[in-house]
Amino acid sequence: MKWPDKVTIKEVGPRDGLQNEKEIVSAEEKIEWIDALSQTGLSYIEITSFVNPNWVPQLSDAEVVAKGIKRNPAVTYGALVPNMRGLETALEADIDEVSVFMSASETHNRKNINKSIDQTFPVLQETINGALAAGKSLRGYVSTIFGCPYEGKVPIEQVFMVCDRLFDMGIGELSLGDTTGIANPRQVEEVLDLALKRYDRNKIALHFHDTRGMAMANVLKALDYGITSFDSALGGIGGCPYAPGASGNVATDDLVYMLEDMGISTKINQAKLLDAAVRIQQSLGKKLPSHQMAVYSEQLKGV
Amino acid sequence: MKWPDKVTIKEVGPRDGLQNEKEIVSAEEKIEWIDALSQTGLSYIEITSFVNPNWVPQLSDAEVVAKGIKRNPAVTYGALVPNMRGLETALEADIDEVSVFMSASETHNRKNINKSIDQTFPVLQETINGALAAGKSLRGYVSTIFGCPYEGKVPIEQVFMVCDRLFDMGIGELSLGDTTGIANPRQVEEVLDLALKRYDRNKIALHFHDTRGMAMANVLKALDYGITSFDSALGGIGGCPYAPGASGNVATDDLVYMLEDMGISTKINQAKLLDAAVRIQQSLGKKLPSHQMAVYSEQLKGV
Repeated sequence: MKWPDKVTIKEVGPRDGLQNEKEIVSAEEKIEWIDALSQTGLSYIEITSFVNPNWVPQLSDAEVVAKGIKRNPAVTYGALVPNMRGLETALEADIDEVSVFMSASETHNRKNINKSIDQTFPVLQETINGALAAGKSLRGYVSTIFGCPYEGKVPIEQVFMVCDRLFDMGIGELSLGDTTGIANPRQVEEVLDLALKRYDRNKIALHFHDTRGMAMANVLKALDYGITSFDSALGGIGGCPYAPGASGNVATDDLVYMLEDMGISTKINQAKLLDAAVRIQQSLGKKLPSHQMAVYSEQLKGV
Repeated sequence: MKWPDKVTIKEVGPRDGLQNEKEIVSAEEKIEWIDALSQTGLSYIEITSFVNPNWVPQLSDAEVVAKGIKRNPAVTYGALVPNMRGLETALEADIDEVSVFMSASETHNRKNINKSIDQTFPVLQETINGALAAGKSLRGYVSTIFGCPYEGKVPIEQVFMVCDRLFDMGIGELSLGDTTGIANPRQVEEVLDLALKRYDRNKIALHFHDTRGMAMANVLKALDYGITSFDSALGGIGGCPYAPGASGNVATDDLVYMLEDMGISTKINQAKLLDAAVRIQQSLGKKLPSHQMAVYSEQLKGV
């Protein structure tokens, strides 16, 4: 199969990236950063999470951020929403797309959401129904597709049972999550061989973390299967709660660099992307782990 | 084509990695580190370079290091040799394999070796003849295969002209070098499509740097072509003289992790590899850029 001509990058830095960063970033800085992201050519930004602030203190300003940003009409602004309570706030803040999430692993789901998988379905169904009634599109994240920090390998039947249910409930896109960054290209092949027999390729996104340095190879393998939607976080911010010191999401700037260099269009301006990365680097007060930022930071020093 | 069942990793950290590190490492520390590498299961270690010490002060102790290490009979010990003078010292130190090097780009070759490509051939022929007469095997590095920092894209005919000459001179293995880490998987595909029509797959190694974060994806693409020999440097040491702040060679520990995780045998013990990496991390006094070392260093802190 030929590689796709164009790919959509879904920027999850303001949500998945930040929620794993210890240094608290102010709402004002987040807004300025997201406004910079909105000017890069990105067509999708997941800006925050409407979970209970006690769970994720970094994102306790969800409503302020969602209401404070300057909307670019060319960008879809998504947010993570765990339940009806979160949905009410998200709708008030006029989020464009609602993301729901759960885990394919029973133990990870319990640790993450404090519910069994069976207990999670009705909560998500209610949330999805509410979002659909409000005219919102829906995205579903399924975590630990390629392995769970508690259970190890997750049976593929279990993965598909959860994915089937989310599609049945009405999600438009399913993001297959390598939550702990342990997928290798052979696993990506095994999962996509089966998943693409079951689901429409255009409804599948891949969500890689770079914990073990395999994210870019996994992206390449997914491109071999014609996948055209990838989640990433600018600068590679975030990390892995199960592997302290590890890298976070695959870096948007690295991903865009590789895709554009391969002649695969992302419609993203790389110079603007690096400018936006410098903002969040300053807010976090640490060197971001992406390769493009390592090169760019040295270039800036030289100026 | 199916991925290979096993792959040979050629550790080039003590030469290609170190020569790009500013912090001078003592001969004693190098010897202890190479002795640790010799116990990891690696079958090939390039231990130094017998170039003029004025060119690469970091490796001015080549003879001391080569004579000081404990040889493991299961390991081939290679070294870079630029000319007859270097060869004499290398033979005195009883190096197992001799590596010669040149660039596919005229400008890069002149800047690196101070000779034109045409002027380089007779010097390498003399060195190769001398090494073959001494019963040594030969490896050839060709740099800037995928692009040159001075000339940009290097015509593939020019690349093959240089490679042809090296094979004609008697090298056993050719290492195709992405010297500045700018190759992308599409280029790897383009080069290997042509190269493997011309040369025996078993005589081709790939040598990637991770400047732009594409090295692991490039390795995967090369595996698609059945390549079974890769150069790498433990911990990802080194860097890129043309992109300060950038990563060095693809990291041996990251490469071995991915390959073994994919079920591709390297015969390398990953725990011993990380122990050896801790040594050089201490000598260099800085955090090594590999992903496995980021995770491992945090685990050590926790002890």
